[in-house]
Amino acid sequence: MASHATAGGGDEEMVEASTLRHRHGAGKDAGGGGAAANGGVDDGRQLAAAAADQEEGPSSVERAFADRAVPSWREQLTVRAFVVSFFLSIMFSIIVMKLNLTTGIIPSLNVSAGLLGFFFVRLWTAAIERLGLLRQPFTRQENTVIQTCVVAAYDIAFSGGFGTYLFGMSETIAKQATEANDAQNVKNPHIGWMIGFLFLVSFIGLFALVPLRKIMIVDYKLTYPSGTATAYLINGFHTPEGAKLAKKQVKTLGKFFLFSFVWGFFQWFYTGGDGCGFQNFPSLGLQAYKNRFYFDFSPTYVGVGMICPHIVNASVLLGGILSWGVMWPLIRNKKGSWYSASLKETSLHGLQGYRVFISIALILGDGLYNFVKVLIRTTTGFVAMMKKNSTLPVSNDGSPMVTGEAASFDDERRTELFLKDQIPKTVAYGGYVAVAAVSIGALPQIFPQLKWYYILVAYVFAPVLAFCNAYGAGLTDWSLASTYGKLAIFIFGAWAGASQGGVLVGLAACGVMMSIVSTASDLMQDFKTGYLTLASPRSMFISQVIGTSMGCVIAPCVFWLFYKAFTDIGVSGTEYPAPYAIVYRNMAILGVDGFSSLPKHCLTLCYIFFAAAIAINLARDLAPPKVARFIPLPMAMAIPFYIGSYFAIDMFIGTVIVFVWGMVNRAKADAFAPAVASGLICGDGIWTLPQSILALAKVKPPICMKFLSRSVNAKVNDFLGN
Amino acid sequence: MASHATAGGGDEEMVEASTLRHRHGAGKDAGGGGAAANGGVDDGRQLAAAAADQEEGPSSVERAFADRAVPSWREQLTVRAFVVSFFLSIMFSIIVMKLNLTTGIIPSLNVSAGLLGFFFVRLWTAAIERLGLLRQPFTRQENTVIQTCVVAAYDIAFSGGFGTYLFGMSETIAKQATEANDAQNVKNPHIGWMIGFLFLVSFIGLFALVPLRKIMIVDYKLTYPSGTATAYLINGFHTPEGAKLAKKQVKTLGKFFLFSFVWGFFQWFYTGGDGCGFQNFPSLGLQAYKNRFYFDFSPTYVGVGMICPHIVNASVLLGGILSWGVMWPLIRNKKGSWYSASLKETSLHGLQGYRVFISIALILGDGLYNFVKVLIRTTTGFVAMMKKNSTLPVSNDGSPMVTGEAASFDDERRTELFLKDQIPKTVAYGGYVAVAAVSIGALPQIFPQLKWYYILVAYVFAPVLAFCNAYGAGLTDWSLASTYGKLAIFIFGAWAGASQGGVLVGLAACGVMMSIVSTASDLMQDFKTGYLTLASPRSMFISQVIGTSMGCVIAPCVFWLFYKAFTDIGVSGTEYPAPYAIVYRNMAILGVDGFSSLPKHCLTLCYIFFAAAIAINLARDLAPPKVARFIPLPMAMAIPFYIGSYFAIDMFIGTVIVFVWGMVNRAKADAFAPAVASGLICGDGIWTLPQSILALAKVKPPICMKFLSRSVNAKVNDFLGN
Repeated sequence: MASHATAGGGDEEMVEASTLRHRHGAGKDAGGGGAAANGGVDDGRQLAAAAADQEEGPSSVERAFADRAVPSWREQLTVRAFVVSFFLSIMFSIIVMKLNLTTGIIPSLNVSAGLLGFFFVRLWTAAIERLGLLRQPFTRQENTVIQTCVVAAYDIAFSGGFGTYLFGMSETIAKQATEANDAQNVKNPHIGWMIGFLFLVSFIGLFALVPLRKIMIVDYKLTYPSGTATAYLINGFHTPEGAKLAKKQVKTLGKFFLFSFVWGFFQWFYTGGDGCGFQNFPSLGLQAYKNRFYFDFSPTYVGVGMICPHIVNASVLLGGILSWGVMWPLIRNKKGSWYSASLKETSLHGLQGYRVFISIALILGDGLYNFVKVLIRTTTGFVAMMKKNSTLPVSNDGSPMVTGEAASFDDERRTELFLKDQIPKTVAYGGYVAVAAVSIGALPQIFPQLKWYYILVAYVFAPVLAFCNAYGAGLTDWSLASTYGKLAIFIFGAWAGASQGGVLVGLAACGVMMSIVSTASDLMQDFKTGYLTLASPRSMFISQVIGTSMGCVIAPCVFWLFYKAFTDIGVSGTEYPAPYAIVYRNMAILGVDGFSSLPKHCLTLCYIFFAAAIAINLARDLAPPKVARFIPLPMAMAIPFYIGSYFAIDMFIGTVIVFVWGMVNRAKADAFAPAVASGLICGDGIWTLPQSILALAKVKPPICMKFLSRSVNAKVNDFLGN
Repeated sequence: MASHATAGGGDEEMVEASTLRHRHGAGKDAGGGGAAANGGVDDGRQLAAAAADQEEGPSSVERAFADRAVPSWREQLTVRAFVVSFFLSIMFSIIVMKLNLTTGIIPSLNVSAGLLGFFFVRLWTAAIERLGLLRQPFTRQENTVIQTCVVAAYDIAFSGGFGTYLFGMSETIAKQATEANDAQNVKNPHIGWMIGFLFLVSFIGLFALVPLRKIMIVDYKLTYPSGTATAYLINGFHTPEGAKLAKKQVKTLGKFFLFSFVWGFFQWFYTGGDGCGFQNFPSLGLQAYKNRFYFDFSPTYVGVGMICPHIVNASVLLGGILSWGVMWPLIRNKKGSWYSASLKETSLHGLQGYRVFISIALILGDGLYNFVKVLIRTTTGFVAMMKKNSTLPVSNDGSPMVTGEAASFDDERRTELFLKDQIPKTVAYGGYVAVAAVSIGALPQIFPQLKWYYILVAYVFAPVLAFCNAYGAGLTDWSLASTYGKLAIFIFGAWAGASQGGVLVGLAACGVMMSIVSTASDLMQDFKTGYLTLASPRSMFISQVIGTSMGCVIAPCVFWLFYKAFTDIGVSGTEYPAPYAIVYRNMAILGVDGFSSLPKHCLTLCYIFFAAAIAINLARDLAPPKVARFIPLPMAMAIPFYIGSYFAIDMFIGTVIVFVWGMVNRAKADAFAPAVASGLICGDGIWTLPQSILALAKVKPPICMKFLSRSVNAKVNDFLGN
């Protein structure tokens, strides 16, 4: 276990996170653009802190729980679990949506989901117990059900593509792209078709790999580091010390939640106009502000920085300095020569074009490298195992090498319970075929450009890709869902062609492919968690179905709230630029149209950065670990290229806080930094709800906090003084 | 001792602080306008925390120190002590000057002076010891010498009248008063004559009461609560536990010092224009801001609030709400009826007149009440003692009623050492006469309007007043120096008459009288401290002489720095309004000219508030303690009447912090709140030094953080957008 804790919590494998995708979309890979926000690390920390006792020596987790009865799978699925899940899903959906639309960097919220789920059900059971009505105690299996359900639900807010492919179809984004913005290639968001679309694509993944669960979990003993970490977290909560620590962590989380919420409220009063308020505080000076270097007082991104590994934050900041500090100012000097001086800053034929396409080049380079790398490792691992035909651990990636009697007791008991409740193969196969059929029939109703045979082809090949991905994630904790999505953009977009709405086809196919591949590996992660907490596979499956259904309704509603409340969603330079929407759309345009729309020298720069991304990744893998940990992550560097460095500074502050805290008191920092970060993120995220309601009610903030240079201020004073 | 700790630290006697003046101008009575910022309370707290062990039971302090030799008086006066004193004096002079010129509220800095003095000499001795060159260990006597010297020096920054009578003579203030602003009644500050003036008036008080020290300290055993508290603080430092606590406190102080300094620096960047920056942050909304209700992000006044007793902070806030929240808006509605609508807000014939004169009425009412009260108590106490002719404790005000053998051992040892070193009576009498003669000859050279016979009369009566004051302060911890100063304003001003420069004469005479009365009682306090720490009276006297000399040079220099660096010192509504300068000048004008200059109904309001101040004080004294502690202090209420409530909000935040901290952890709050407060005050104060140097170098901050209403912002955006 100790060895696993290192694997789950270290920053070796898990931090090269470009397309790293954790349990249930935590540490979202941002749909293939997103951040290397790594869920496993904090889970690992939590684990290290909570289960420290269990970690030492080959002691048995299941012996400690031996006196507690395991409820039947029906008993694991309680009403209270789903009620709590529902509210937590709404909360996390709001947060994820906000992150989607601001920077696309989404950290793992699994720990806060776990903590809050535990806390609320405990509260619930304690209250009921006082009334003498408690029929069923709160078990770790039930906790696993909540965790699974919540994560499945809020995951839709991310994988639904509201910040990527789905919103990339809209007119707002199309207008900025200037290419392929005809009616054929545009579909504006509407709550109706979005819910329908999500229901059609989100379930099929659940059926794809169900029959293989015994092979992958019991026989191959795949690691699934994030799933394992979550299981240890939950097991930890249900020991007395774990419960105590969890209570303290919840208290900390609550404090920072409140602070962050109140701060959001306070800030609001000073935003009575464009460019007003703390979000535009030129904390590093006006010159730096103009190049989007400033601390924007966002607790969210300080929190994100606290959760992400140091190297991610440093990479983001480095990317910001490289792009906004060096490259864009240099390219701006070429105005009139490299691109027309009459163009606006936001035109893709001007400076904005360099920003977007160089980002894409970095993202694609990083994605390609990791795709190949994971594919090779998956294949070799699979081949090696087939040869051995063994049930021993297969990977050297930190699988739980527990020795002796304790391990086999744990394994025996877990395997016994894992195999008790079966999901009939007919349900799996039947379900897959049925959902696929409905999907093939219904999706062209939503997107007439997306012909039924595209979808059929996708669904034929999908299970193979899903298996590859689930197996790779099990070995490396690395989900390549967004890479498969991008692949779909290029393949199906080119197949359809621009005149046939190829851009829209590409984006829609991306959604279809991503959903299936990602859900399949998520479910396998859940099975692993369930295996380790003795939760039934059946209850896991049902919980995920229910969670996905919730998400299919909640996520579009939340998006709709944002879309209606804040008018300039998706516009570059505003509060909600939705940076990946334009990146995805431009990938689709590239796939369909080629490189025709790029400004001068942009393609050359793209090639350079594409190659650089591969080279840097190679260097990370080949360099000795001591050096490798200081080599930045190209994927993380790409994010500020497009939107600026302000959030990079927030994140860097977060990283500094955790670093200093760790220096002062390592144990406390490990145990409480995730709680503080979650509090900051959740509080600020939830403030968005009243904020958007105020915006919908047309209540505008009364004051504008404005920042002027001394000379402009003198002019304004003259003007105001009359 | 325990009973004393209550008297020194409780908020019964010491908090009715109108003219309450602590050891060495700590808890400055703000020159008779100033705040009830009570030094004794935190000294008491410190004492309670540091010397808790000693407090319990009749244990002996001196027995604990019995094995330590007492150095001779010459050895007590070390070079290192005066070097450290010099630098601390500069630091505290800057802080006091800033407070003088912003609100006139000056809290006790004794604890920080004590802490820092202890810390720096410890650092010094530790460094020397490492080099093997330490000839003399650091003793509590030396510590007392530093404390005395520093406090005597930075006291001049307050008693020199830079925020009151001295600056009240200037043209800047005279212009605002509209009456008596002819050349006869104006004298602009200049560093040369200010240093001369201070040297002439600051020393005479030292000689006035020296011959009476045995009677007052040994025979009458007067309490001098603040002096006693300081002594216990110093005694505490020199026990091992005390030194440890002091070290921790210094660390806390240092942290908050740094924070406060950096924050001041950060704020500076955003003040590139009038009304810019955090000082003008409309944290409670624009409407409240217009009525000067806002949190101005000043760590200084948050710190001041943390040191002042809760009732003072609450009174200040109440006064602010009453005046700026209720009265001034109501009076403003009478514009055109009560006063001419064509007048500016800052004209004393308009709204400003109500603000200034109602403040004066409250201050005078409070002063008169307390003058009479202390006089009665002093007389009755004195008479009672003369009757008894006893050497037993005379007051019921919490004199150290230590019982048994330990007490008499302490007393014996202290008395023995106190009487060892004598100051010859000839020095005292001769010194008084010599200084008085020089003063009478030289002062008219500085102020031709101040005839030599005025000064002679003042110096004839001064020793009697000085004795009254020193005796009263010994009993009640209450120095009435500023009340005697105000008395001098009226008497000598009326004697001279307006045409003979009566206003200037009044203000100068105020300085002469205040200096002598205050220094005399300060010295007696020092003797008490020396008595309790076995420091020689001779070293106390010399230390005070040296400290006073330092102060006479440092204080004018610091004032000069402010005066040259910040151009609008003394102008109402700016960062440095120097509120008491105009209050003092107007008292002088009232004394000379009568009430001719007041706007309509202002006199009636003044009478009402004068009476109210007396009534409220009476209520405080007559009500049962449970109720009395919730009755506000009129003197504290008067301060925001003139300058607004922004600092009241800072102070209230300070009080809330201490209150909540006390609820959470009483012991920690008692021990560390003064350190945190001192750190906040000192850091912000010291930032003023680089700030004024930047201002002198004409380096202007680059950015203006401006606050506009939404509608004005829209206009400005149109204007800037062209």
